[in-house]
Amino acid sequence: MAIDFTLAPEHEEIRRRVRAFVQDVIVPAVPGDLPRDDYLRIIFDLRRQARAEGLWLPHMPREWGGMGLGHVELAMVQAEAARTRLGPWVLNCAAPDEGNMHTLLHWGTDEQKEKYLRPLLEGTKMSCFAMTEPEVAGSDPTLIRTHAVQDGDEWLINGHKWFISNARRASFAILMARTEPDVPPGSRGGTTAFLIDLPQDGWDDVREVETMHGSTGHSEIVITDLRVPDAQILGGRGNGHRLGQYRLGPARLAHCMRWIAQAETALDMMVDRALNRYSHGSLLAEKQGVQWLIADSAMELYQCKLMVLHAASKIDKGEDFRTEVSMAKHFVANSLNRIIDRSIQVHGALGYSTDTPLANMFQHARWARFADGADEIHQMRIAERVIAAYRDTGSTNAATGGLPL
Amino acid sequence: MAIDFTLAPEHEEIRRRVRAFVQDVIVPAVPGDLPRDDYLRIIFDLRRQARAEGLWLPHMPREWGGMGLGHVELAMVQAEAARTRLGPWVLNCAAPDEGNMHTLLHWGTDEQKEKYLRPLLEGTKMSCFAMTEPEVAGSDPTLIRTHAVQDGDEWLINGHKWFISNARRASFAILMARTEPDVPPGSRGGTTAFLIDLPQDGWDDVREVETMHGSTGHSEIVITDLRVPDAQILGGRGNGHRLGQYRLGPARLAHCMRWIAQAETALDMMVDRALNRYSHGSLLAEKQGVQWLIADSAMELYQCKLMVLHAASKIDKGEDFRTEVSMAKHFVANSLNRIIDRSIQVHGALGYSTDTPLANMFQHARWARFADGADEIHQMRIAERVIAAYRDTGSTNAATGGLPL
Amino acid sequence: MAIDFTLAPEHEEIRRRVRAFVQDVIVPAVPGDLPRDDYLRIIFDLRRQARAEGLWLPHMPREWGGMGLGHVELAMVQAEAARTRLGPWVLNCAAPDEGNMHTLLHWGTDEQKEKYLRPLLEGTKMSCFAMTEPEVAGSDPTLIRTHAVQDGDEWLINGHKWFISNARRASFAILMARTEPDVPPGSRGGTTAFLIDLPQDGWDDVREVETMHGSTGHSEIVITDLRVPDAQILGGRGNGHRLGQYRLGPARLAHCMRWIAQAETALDMMVDRALNRYSHGSLLAEKQGVQWLIADSAMELYQCKLMVLHAASKIDKGEDFRTEVSMAKHFVANSLNRIIDRSIQVHGALGYSTDTPLANMFQHARWARFADGADEIHQMRIAERVIAAYRDTGSTNAATGGLPL
Amino acid sequence: MAIDFTLAPEHEEIRRRVRAFVQDVIVPAVPGDLPRDDYLRIIFDLRRQARAEGLWLPHMPREWGGMGLGHVELAMVQAEAARTRLGPWVLNCAAPDEGNMHTLLHWGTDEQKEKYLRPLLEGTKMSCFAMTEPEVAGSDPTLIRTHAVQDGDEWLINGHKWFISNARRASFAILMARTEPDVPPGSRGGTTAFLIDLPQDGWDDVREVETMHGSTGHSEIVITDLRVPDAQILGGRGNGHRLGQYRLGPARLAHCMRWIAQAETALDMMVDRALNRYSHGSLLAEKQGVQWLIADSAMELYQCKLMVLHAASKIDKGEDFRTEVSMAKHFVANSLNRIIDRSIQVHGALGYSTDTPLANMFQHARWARFADGADEIHQMRIAERVIAAYRDTGSTNAATGGLPL
Repeated sequence: MAIDFTLAPEHEEIRRRVRAFVQDVIVPAVPGDLPRDDYLRIIFDLRRQARAEGLWLPHMPREWGGMGLGHVELAMVQAEAARTRLGPWVLNCAAPDEGNMHTLLHWGTDEQKEKYLRPLLEGTKMSCFAMTEPEVAGSDPTLIRTHAVQDGDEWLINGHKWFISNARRASFAILMARTEPDVPPGSRGGTTAFLIDLPQDGWDDVREVETMHGSTGHSEIVITDLRVPDAQILGGRGNGHRLGQYRLGPARLAHCMRWIAQAETALDMMVDRALNRYSHGSLLAEKQGVQWLIADSAMELYQCKLMVLHAASKIDKGEDFRTEVSMAKHFVANSLNRIIDRSIQVHGALGYSTDTPLANMFQHARWARFADGADEIHQMRIAERVIAAYRDTGSTNAATGGLPL
Repeated sequence: MAIDFTLAPEHEEIRRRVRAFVQDVIVPAVPGDLPRDDYLRIIFDLRRQARAEGLWLPHMPREWGGMGLGHVELAMVQAEAARTRLGPWVLNCAAPDEGNMHTLLHWGTDEQKEKYLRPLLEGTKMSCFAMTEPEVAGSDPTLIRTHAVQDGDEWLINGHKWFISNARRASFAILMARTEPDVPPGSRGGTTAFLIDLPQDGWDDVREVETMHGSTGHSEIVITDLRVPDAQILGGRGNGHRLGQYRLGPARLAHCMRWIAQAETALDMMVDRALNRYSHGSLLAEKQGVQWLIADSAMELYQCKLMVLHAASKIDKGEDFRTEVSMAKHFVANSLNRIIDRSIQVHGALGYSTDTPLANMFQHARWARFADGADEIHQMRIAERVIAAYRDTGSTNAATGGLPL
Repeated sequence: MAIDFTLAPEHEEIRRRVRAFVQDVIVPAVPGDLPRDDYLRIIFDLRRQARAEGLWLPHMPREWGGMGLGHVELAMVQAEAARTRLGPWVLNCAAPDEGNMHTLLHWGTDEQKEKYLRPLLEGTKMSCFAMTEPEVAGSDPTLIRTHAVQDGDEWLINGHKWFISNARRASFAILMARTEPDVPPGSRGGTTAFLIDLPQDGWDDVREVETMHGSTGHSEIVITDLRVPDAQILGGRGNGHRLGQYRLGPARLAHCMRWIAQAETALDMMVDRALNRYSHGSLLAEKQGVQWLIADSAMELYQCKLMVLHAASKIDKGEDFRTEVSMAKHFVANSLNRIIDRSIQVHGALGYSTDTPLANMFQHARWARFADGADEIHQMRIAERVIAAYRDTGSTNAATGGLPL
Repeated sequence: MAIDFTLAPEHEEIRRRVRAFVQDVIVPAVPGDLPRDDYLRIIFDLRRQARAEGLWLPHMPREWGGMGLGHVELAMVQAEAARTRLGPWVLNCAAPDEGNMHTLLHWGTDEQKEKYLRPLLEGTKMSCFAMTEPEVAGSDPTLIRTHAVQDGDEWLINGHKWFISNARRASFAILMARTEPDVPPGSRGGTTAFLIDLPQDGWDDVREVETMHGSTGHSEIVITDLRVPDAQILGGRGNGHRLGQYRLGPARLAHCMRWIAQAETALDMMVDRALNRYSHGSLLAEKQGVQWLIADSAMELYQCKLMVLHAASKIDKGEDFRTEVSMAKHFVANSLNRIIDRSIQVHGALGYSTDTPLANMFQHARWARFADGADEIHQMRIAERVIAAYRDTGSTNAATGGLPL
């Protein structure tokens, strides 16, 4: 035990291999403006190569066909993979499948693992996670209104979901529904997770919600008299909230790992532009204010990396990581937006055009401040834990990382 | 080699001992409103006890009577010691003596070490570092105007210094003067460091500069025809700039370690107040906005700690730590100001009064944004290194910590 | 003369009529998802009604068929009209035609006015303004590379432009080209404005630049051996820079007037959402932090309005308005982005979707921070004028509005 | 009625006279380091001259010996007067007397006006306002605990106050006490204002609270069995809250007027320093980042001025000015702190010293964010009114100044 910020040589080697695979295999295989259907074909092609290379399921244990990495090493793999948008898909560690794999591994019965987890691991099927509803705050899942009523050994489900990413490619969903009408909204214990085979009667994918970055992939679902047998419950009745929280912790951090790759790309581009653009008597890189934009971005990206490594380390040690993950999620999401925004500003009109990837990154990045808990939710949770630490120990120290200073 | 954020058990034990010594020995020995002269007497008393306990010179090697700690472990000792203002003085690791010890150890001749370093280590003498001048920007030491002219085997020095901390308690100064008139201001290599015994003819301590936090300890010095023999040069002629930069790196980080203790105290107080103050229908701790103040402060403090640990780790590994120390210096100094400011705001009028230590901390904290390099200097240096990393490697990665993601 | 912030009753009456026309005539006439070609047809239809109502050319003098309003009253008309995107088009006061009308009125010969200004005023033709180039910083028009070489009584023009808004609908362009090769880039006096009939040989509209908000309307133009007679010079040889600056002043302020309408819409939506969304035990509107978002947005919008009114008042008085317009342009553009961003955050995922207009407003708003001078240019100009005021008068007072306090 | 931002010539003339009086009479009469007792003597001397010049009581009607100015003109006088700290004292328009005069004029009986208002107007007596208590949030005056119990035609008062500015110079206090025990804390209507002659038995001025800016003038008062006759009630029983709110509106704005003078001084100094300090190859004024500090400060100061003029105009018109005053109070207080902070940063160590007035201004400015309503109170009130405007009219327009755009 001693402070150390370096990877073991065997992990550095993995990092190099992932980087090379991204640069040499994935990037050349993906043309810039690809029809959406071709995307899937290319992904499945590349998956075969990735699997053959052993760059496959970095987040899964070896006994399930994965690379058996800890979250610290996973951070490094995700950050390398996410330098190109398809990277995590190719290595089969992209959301939402990645989080669903963790969930099934932890909460699934053996039968459920065979039926649902196994094909995800094979990379031949995809999945979705259906929690968010338009009528109630996604940030407060105790308010979920989609409800399941027991009818013999079946459940009859009705409700309304949206922003269900990947729904149209999924062969099953993990669906969250209220099963305990006596548990009031605002309290935990009222919801249950169900495994829903797709397509299925009663599950109506009415549209893909169009968003700031286009319309690729977030479905609105109307659920009408959908019937599932009791055996499709995942993780036990009334455990929906716990299962959701369990799923979200590492999933949030995995987002951060991928966002860091995006932020670094934006910073690289900012510097490149500043070195090549002249205005009012000097290169942009020589101007004090532009240097501030660069320095502030570098500091934030540095902090993002430290936070993600530390939170990952806490997960790996089996310690309570919720505060650290909330802090990382909040800060990385906001830094990502700021760094891309600064890079666009340094690019001027070019940055506003789609001639560089920045405009597209900007539109995706805005989503990061809602995804898996809006900024405000994480701030609330962090504050609650800081307050609790002070109450319990007379010091906030335990809520700022529990670090040795 | 593997990412780790924990201390070895023997270092955790040291941490506990420092904390106990601060709480049980130092704090009770220091009354709140002590005449300034008594301060010194109490410090020397406490130093004897600290030395007897083996809590002495945490930053010095064992062969020089120190605890032989690395910078990572030093961070933990400094942060514990600085929970009370006199702590670092008592453990003999306070600025400017601490930085001067490093400097003498690295650059001094054996004779200089015996004569100047030894008494500092004994804790019986104090020192100062005389670089800043009122006429030229302290942030650009190539502009120094105080000049030394060779006269036989002596140097004749004339000039003007200010903000020379600890000058009135010092028995010697490390003085920076221009010796190479042919090296133009703006270029390195024009200055030399001298060891000046105090008091001395030609060294006129004309006043203590009064500042926002009172007038304790920053002297203005007029130097007139001060004569020193050639042997008083420290580190070689023309090496003043290099010596100054060498000194400042770890010294800046030691400031950060102490500031973290202050910031944590301010956050503890913020939470305590929020739990005990009621306004407009609820406790402050229950209000969303106050929770944001708490959460933002906790996040920043967490980041401060991670940055200081990482920069210390780079020093310990013998790697180039300048970018990391600049980032830590900039961010910790600014976070310190923000966290204290928020804590004052949560305290209301009480925070503005001197009934709590916050007002005093606020006035001291403002200094942190100038000390050992103003914010703007560090932003410039960080940007330069980010740009250089991109130029050299095609990626900014090396300038955001060189971390494994 | 006395401080007054109210409109004369006859102007209040105009305000009411514009508001009614927007709500009762324009909004019902424009379906949400209209093919682009139909847009133009609908605009021309509505223009006839607006002209019949006397709500036409609010920025032009009566003798040229306009409403003869000052800039203060214009602010009110633009802000009302811009509550719907087509409003300024319908009243024929939209960019870039609006700025081109001002320019032609001030700089055109009688013949040029008849040929180019008259049809713009009739509302039957449109125009564009061709200054920005991809190769050089748009923020520094002294760098323009498109060049015109005299050849008898003709000019031969070659060059490259982009982000030429409205080019595909325009029947003529005001084109900026370098005519004085001896004036070095970085100095004024090197460029000249030309009136270019469109379409024309040598003017190749190679694409519409796709941007963050889609691809509607900003063309890239390659100019190859385009010939124009000497009489097509607008405003005199070597006067291009002066003409451009003259045009941009009021044009920038007109942008601000329209942005204020957008910002107010975003704030209205933020409050509406906060009053209707429940999470974690209370309505959003009851939470302190959400109240801060609302209060900060209201304060900024209030400041935007005051700034625009004051800058417009300076234009109307014939005083130097450049500092005030720069401050308004910078602040309104940034406030617009912040207010829309906060409104999106309060809406959660809904705000990210295109189910509300916020996502589209967000994507357009980012452009405001480049349009007609990037943020950094205005900050530079403001600082220069503050410094000049201090140099000239010993006080910065004249550069903060020259107000009576 | 028409938008106008200029003063009438007769008011411009007053402005010139105030400026000349400050520069030529007040500033030369006040040495920098004056014993506190001499201050009062000098103030009273200067008051005689100001009164003779007719520069006296700018905020009071002519029939009470004042200059009969509206709030708009008062803004100009206060901003001129406050360029030196004693200015408002000399013109007899300083807090707290100024607010107490307004209060007595509006709420006092004829007898109370003769006895208490008259000597204030004469400038021979001073007063204080005793509302804030250490035990409860000053931002929520419904919580006041000091209580008055009726005993025949007398009231027996017990309680505890602090931060009572000017108490030691005052010959009377306006004291707020709870008289209606049945009105619960949190509701209005429970408190009553009393006029208390000083010194008096039962009023124990136990100390001057030491603050960040020293210990001059904010007293802590212990009130024990203080007896006052019924006739000392000011404004009617149970009207304490209303009276306090009435008093605070214009008083807050008067603070803003004076703060603007301070902010302008800080900006002037910032520019002066930037023009005279050289570092790393150029003057500070030539660096882009320093220009941003200057430009941002100028924009904020400009906004402060516009806001104060507009809020003053609403008071003069007899319109509801609470939202505008809250916005001005919040923004001017925060801008003041930011502008002084930036000016200090540009000054470097000199700015931290007391060799310039900036350090002292910084320490006073922090108080502005609590005085007469903490930031958070104003944000809450602004948000409430924005929400109410939207609820009542379907638009937030009325809560952003009710301006004609």
